[in-house]
Amino acid sequence: MSSEQKPVLYSYWRSSCSWRVRIALGLKNIDYEYKTVNLLSAEALSELKEINPAAKVPTYVDNGHALSESMAIIEYLEETHPEVPLLPKDPVKRALARQIALLVTSGIQPLHNLKVLQTLNKKEAGLGQQFAKQFVVEGLTALEVLLKQNSGKYCIGDELTMADLNIPPLVYSANRFGLDLSAYPTVNRINATLAEIPAFIAAHPDNQPDTGLNA
Amino acid sequence: MSSEQKPVLYSYWRSSCSWRVRIALGLKNIDYEYKTVNLLSAEALSELKEINPAAKVPTYVDNGHALSESMAIIEYLEETHPEVPLLPKDPVKRALARQIALLVTSGIQPLHNLKVLQTLNKKEAGLGQQFAKQFVVEGLTALEVLLKQNSGKYCIGDELTMADLNIPPLVYSANRFGLDLSAYPTVNRINATLAEIPAFIAAHPDNQPDTGLNA
Repeated sequence: MSSEQKPVLYSYWRSSCSWRVRIALGLKNIDYEYKTVNLLSAEALSELKEINPAAKVPTYVDNGHALSESMAIIEYLEETHPEVPLLPKDPVKRALARQIALLVTSGIQPLHNLKVLQTLNKKEAGLGQQFAKQFVVEGLTALEVLLKQNSGKYCIGDELTMADLNIPPLVYSANRFGLDLSAYPTVNRINATLAEIPAFIAAHPDNQPDTGLNA
Repeated sequence: MSSEQKPVLYSYWRSSCSWRVRIALGLKNIDYEYKTVNLLSAEALSELKEINPAAKVPTYVDNGHALSESMAIIEYLEETHPEVPLLPKDPVKRALARQIALLVTSGIQPLHNLKVLQTLNKKEAGLGQQFAKQFVVEGLTALEVLLKQNSGKYCIGDELTMADLNIPPLVYSANRFGLDLSAYPTVNRINATLAEIPAFIAAHPDNQPDTGLNA
């Protein structure tokens, strides 16, 4: 396999987990091939399953190795492309950056992803949204306190870290659920700051090759 | 604050997230003070919230810094106590170890934790278990394939990594849900191997200061 071969990102425009990896790739100036996975197509998921047994996006293929779980991919990018760091140097700040990232990726996002909504809405129309909203609100409430304590311009002081990659997808989801975000001024402030950064603009769901699919 | 002060782990015996941090602390020979958080006590959760806005266990306090999210704590322990490594040296293997760990901590555990069960069972008795089982089965199915591809004695070849810390809590939860685990021979084999290791025995829910609380 040629070392010249571009890495491939299996992604879906509105997947928040794909989104945060797209931001990391952009910030680190990594050129990659975008492959759309239509999450509503059983055939597309079955194809994806051949390289990722969990059949989830994002799946990142680098030199023939298929990697998944957004935070594992981001840590891999951090280790293999350290030139633009997404973690501070201080161990406590590194832990806080990961904590904020994981509060979203493990504590909030899994409870409002597409499969969860589908499963609960099959039980009762709207149950998925009702369930998701409760956990998004709980997560946002904790996040706001953590950001008040730790943020500067960005989530952890004035350094852009992997924590920040989670803010725009979370705010986007919260807006899709129609939540009132006025109780989270620090989240909103950081989100507005991030929205001006080119890598964040390029990674936005509105700017992907598959934007609008199934919309 | 004295540097002699022991770190404190806020934990609950049956919390799978606390459990995996207890294993890491044991493997790395880190002496710590165990503080029980009664997850069914509103007062205990309110107290915990003062140091961790998400009011979740585990919360790990080191030199006055309160850290949470089990994977963030484990990465912090890895960076501050590298003598017993829980990540391989090769970047792809590191990514796979994290991927397997996150498949459990982000992809499975959040969907069967106490709060999720409580929320859904309030809606309809047994709905929580029904929901949880579906996602535990899906997760175990993907995990079995990944472990068949990557395991040796442990999850990633013959090296103990942070992936392994997730296996016993997952199998324990699956058993509590009454799932048939015969379809996951690699998961079972690794779980049996891990069950012989002193740090894994010491971290087991049956061997904690608060074992049996609310049982």
